[in-house]
Amino acid sequence: MKFCSACGARVAFEVPAGDNRRRHVCGDCGSIHYQNPKSVVGTIPEWDGRLLLCLRAIEPRHGYWTLPAGFLECGETMEEGASREAREEANANLSLGSLYTLFSIPHIDQVHVYYRARLLDPDFHPGEESLDVQLFAEDEIPWGELAFPVVHKTLELWFADRRAGRFRTHTGDIVRNPGSREWPRFTVRSD
Amino acid sequence: MKFCSACGARVAFEVPAGDNRRRHVCGDCGSIHYQNPKSVVGTIPEWDGRLLLCLRAIEPRHGYWTLPAGFLECGETMEEGASREAREEANANLSLGSLYTLFSIPHIDQVHVYYRARLLDPDFHPGEESLDVQLFAEDEIPWGELAFPVVHKTLELWFADRRAGRFRTHTGDIVRNPGSREWPRFTVRSD
Repeated sequence: MKFCSACGARVAFEVPAGDNRRRHVCGDCGSIHYQNPKSVVGTIPEWDGRLLLCLRAIEPRHGYWTLPAGFLECGETMEEGASREAREEANANLSLGSLYTLFSIPHIDQVHVYYRARLLDPDFHPGEESLDVQLFAEDEIPWGELAFPVVHKTLELWFADRRAGRFRTHTGDIVRNPGSREWPRFTVRSD
Repeated sequence: MKFCSACGARVAFEVPAGDNRRRHVCGDCGSIHYQNPKSVVGTIPEWDGRLLLCLRAIEPRHGYWTLPAGFLECGETMEEGASREAREEANANLSLGSLYTLFSIPHIDQVHVYYRARLLDPDFHPGEESLDVQLFAEDEIPWGELAFPVVHKTLELWFADRRAGRFRTHTGDIVRNPGSREWPRFTVRSD
């Protein structure tokens, strides 16, 4: 951010009076432009014991498999956003279930929230952001071709909970050191 | 938003190519400025069966009681943000427990997330954003002087769960019609 979105003047990056963090502050009109993490909402859509994954047609991670998910939009609830993403990415109609995972990913300023879901019918097909959409049984999941660590962990937890016969809610963090290419560190609490 | 924060030119409010929503788009440098809901993170701090509330020293709702909570900041996890807010608003040291409530509040583009917590000691005192901080037993809660419906509902659920002897995770929506001053409509799912 270089310019004030309210008046067009140059902004400074400084600690405003009464605050304890640097913000983008307009020296002209005084506006303070706060930046905060974004929420990504998604689902784990199930049909007859198999899970729906989308092959990404967009960057980042073009050509890798993911759960249908995307940024929560203004004016919608998390559940509405999660259902919308499944429609947009997979033309999938869902019955939404309970909150399943909530992960903070502070190095990319995102919070990811996934809900359990049942497909209402198997008539899905790729939306504009997907190259392909398929159902996978546990032994068919393309573990080496998943787009994001949060998807890997959410699927891992889902299959472990199914084996245990009880779906819990899992919350935690996914932390990667800046610049590192290593697999991130997960902290998970299961209730 | 009237001006592009990247280049300072005027922005239009229009649907970008390949999108289905209106965004602030710069006609000069092409930047698309997405706006998304913000996360508010807080705690329900307990000490010996009583809950800690803060009397707000700031607007909105100056002079009303609330749970310690505030906007999630970039670079922190939800748990870190929730603990930080308790320190900033009440100088309270907590042991954080499990996720308790997650509410979408779409008419103000916020998602509120509260965690259960135990005070590590009763040595709390008001921070800059609080006029007073006190512990309240259930029959002492100032129900008519609470700052926000989400706080009212979270406290109601907490005391009901305590009576039932089991703390669950509650998710849902708080929806108020635009311009209405009525008490909002709650949808709660308890798992």
